Amino acid sequence: MNAGEVAKTARAASDAAAHLSTEAKDRVLGTLEGLLRERQEFLFEENRKDIEKAKSELLPESLIERLKLDAKVVDEMAAGLRDVMQLPDPVGEIVKMWKRPSGLQVGRMRIPIGVIAIIYESRPNVTIDAFALCLKSGNVVILKGGKEALYSNRALFSLVTEALTRCGVPAEAAQLIETSDRAYLYELLGLSDYIDLVIPRGGEALIRSVAEHSRIPVLKHYKGVCAVYVDEWVDEEMALNVCLNAKVQKPATCNAMETLLVHEAIAPRFLPEMVSRLREAGVTIRGCERARRIVAGLDEATERDWQEEYLDMVLSVKVVHDMEEAIAHIRAYGSQHTDAIMTRDYHNAWRFLKEVNSSLVLVNASTRLNDGFQLGLGAEMGISTTRLHAFGPMGLEELTVTKFIAFGDGQQRS
Amino acid sequence: MNAGEVAKTARAASDAAAHLSTEAKDRVLGTLEGLLRERQEFLFEENRKDIEKAKSELLPESLIERLKLDAKVVDEMAAGLRDVMQLPDPVGEIVKMWKRPSGLQVGRMRIPIGVIAIIYESRPNVTIDAFALCLKSGNVVILKGGKEALYSNRALFSLVTEALTRCGVPAEAAQLIETSDRAYLYELLGLSDYIDLVIPRGGEALIRSVAEHSRIPVLKHYKGVCAVYVDEWVDEEMALNVCLNAKVQKPATCNAMETLLVHEAIAPRFLPEMVSRLREAGVTIRGCERARRIVAGLDEATERDWQEEYLDMVLSVKVVHDMEEAIAHIRAYGSQHTDAIMTRDYHNAWRFLKEVNSSLVLVNASTRLNDGFQLGLGAEMGISTTRLHAFGPMGLEELTVTKFIAFGDGQQRS
Repeated sequence: MNAGEVAKTARAASDAAAHLSTEAKDRVLGTLEGLLRERQEFLFEENRKDIEKAKSELLPESLIERLKLDAKVVDEMAAGLRDVMQLPDPVGEIVKMWKRPSGLQVGRMRIPIGVIAIIYESRPNVTIDAFALCLKSGNVVILKGGKEALYSNRALFSLVTEALTRCGVPAEAAQLIETSDRAYLYELLGLSDYIDLVIPRGGEALIRSVAEHSRIPVLKHYKGVCAVYVDEWVDEEMALNVCLNAKVQKPATCNAMETLLVHEAIAPRFLPEMVSRLREAGVTIRGCERARRIVAGLDEATERDWQEEYLDMVLSVKVVHDMEEAIAHIRAYGSQHTDAIMTRDYHNAWRFLKEVNSSLVLVNASTRLNDGFQLGLGAEMGISTTRLHAFGPMGLEELTVTKFIAFGDGQQRS
Repeated sequence: MNAGEVAKTARAASDAAAHLSTEAKDRVLGTLEGLLRERQEFLFEENRKDIEKAKSELLPESLIERLKLDAKVVDEMAAGLRDVMQLPDPVGEIVKMWKRPSGLQVGRMRIPIGVIAIIYESRPNVTIDAFALCLKSGNVVILKGGKEALYSNRALFSLVTEALTRCGVPAEAAQLIETSDRAYLYELLGLSDYIDLVIPRGGEALIRSVAEHSRIPVLKHYKGVCAVYVDEWVDEEMALNVCLNAKVQKPATCNAMETLLVHEAIAPRFLPEMVSRLREAGVTIRGCERARRIVAGLDEATERDWQEEYLDMVLSVKVVHDMEEAIAHIRAYGSQHTDAIMTRDYHNAWRFLKEVNSSLVLVNASTRLNDGFQLGLGAEMGISTTRLHAFGPMGLEELTVTKFIAFGDGQQRS
């Protein structure tokens, strides 16, 4: 099918998808879970074709790693399906009701967004994860994976189609685009009459390219330059532990700490111990001039370091005069992703929380907690730093919108 | 300033705007209200230049009417400012909190979207109304009015600037674009790094043109083809009254009824009386074949009528076999704006409410109630039929987004 046909087919299926019963949707997810486990060997076989092709094309080892489908990845996908099954169905939920002076009862009810296109790179598990979230929220999904994972995505998608069909749900509720033709993708991204939302998942280059070519709203996140500010009056042991966790627990993620800001009054005592623990964990530290005066042997942080998303065991450290300077630094260099304050000061905690407008702002907790599962959304479609519709982790609710409903007994307008 | 400078200036002012106190914002609105009343003569004088120019260019009478600033329009703008002053400030509101097993308290707090561009046509009152809503919700507004209203908009905007300055708020919190150069507008609509949202207000041609050229998310509504379905079992007198109101109370608006769908079992009794009341009010009726068999002398409704937004004293009428056919008709021809059912049947009321996914779905009340004031939002920035972020009337809350907040005592990720 060409891009227009895919989009029109998806749109035509969207009413049926929006009105599937919770039971029907959960049955599809359960069936798919079973199929994933039963057909593991088939999946591994198809996946091997991608892996061999990637090796023959000398693609980087890290990409091949992400491409890999093994028993562990299948387990994770299956567990993910089970998680989504157990989440409440957001469609039809009435989130608020109020009464007008005329007696009209007005409210808001959740409905699906409609048709969502997910553009992703090498990880084939996205095929299953994104399908599950879209189905449960009543949306039709158009999946467009990377060409390196074509065999794997096609195999996974064949199970999606089988699960839908087995459960009597129209197979059109999910579409897979197999071509990697740019012109095809750009045409798809122009079909705003049929597709309601585009979510790119992958590296910054992919996301920028999708955002640039789309005529459809895009929920995106470019990068996470996350900062932790350690205030003057603080539980030092807690701050040491949380900062260490924020940096080293998984440094390659968007919610890992990249910049540590320390109040000047506590820096002479706090920084040497912090640096020693970070170094022990293998972190390289780039400090501002004042930090380097306090701790010997730090690399020099340049202007570029403050805006760098290292995604690695590297940290930039700055000593600040006060919280105001810390907030100003975050506004100037941060990415509105995740920022935290470590403090015992009630007023500073509240002020930081109010004045830093990142997608998650934490008091006395690790930036690594910015994640749909950690925050209790139960599932996650990625983290949005777009300040519209959804800001932060996107769960099932974020894949819906509310319509107004009104119960009357003859109310008119005068 | 060129488009880039305007957008960058707006972005630079957005942090200050986001953190203005409620008191400061209300003071600006109150000051502006006073200025509008004090400087009426100045406003009328400038407005006369627009009117004279429009007359000399032989612009249509209806446009000149919309352009006019008189004591009544000034009163309405002033009352609008007072309304917005009295609404609660949405910024900083915590809309939800929940506890994670780790003890982390997670919530969502409203923050402004950032920079909002409003592109509008001839009505100069939008300059004041849009500014007030954006200021109160902590957003910086970029106003781009029509060239026919240039003198009026410039005069009104000078009062906005004066009110801001008098209250010690940076004048950059609102920007007016005076040029009507298309290239300038298209450049502005490409500046997605500085502008977060575009809201076009005006006719379908304006809205389509903005949507086509924007790289920034657009909240829009194209048209309202609103239907009322009169069910088999219904309070007939109520249905007659509500349908009459939905059609004739203000036929030129997007939430006026354009199509009446009547259950075949009640049509022979209901339609003659309905048609007689509508005709008395001056409405021309175009009926399907069955309707024309029931009531003599109806015009013939063609396929085109079902998708037509008449915005006039014209109504299309169709007799349907059952509610299912009514819902199918609304899905096929409706515009997802406003649809209503008139019924005594509990099951049908709920089914219609759930299955029709328009921005407002009513049971036993007039479509004319789809409006921010009528539904109790207190104010309105227009009605969105975009199924993302805001669907239906947009009030102050819809001009915000929520960030996640978390209160911890040392929580880490393991």
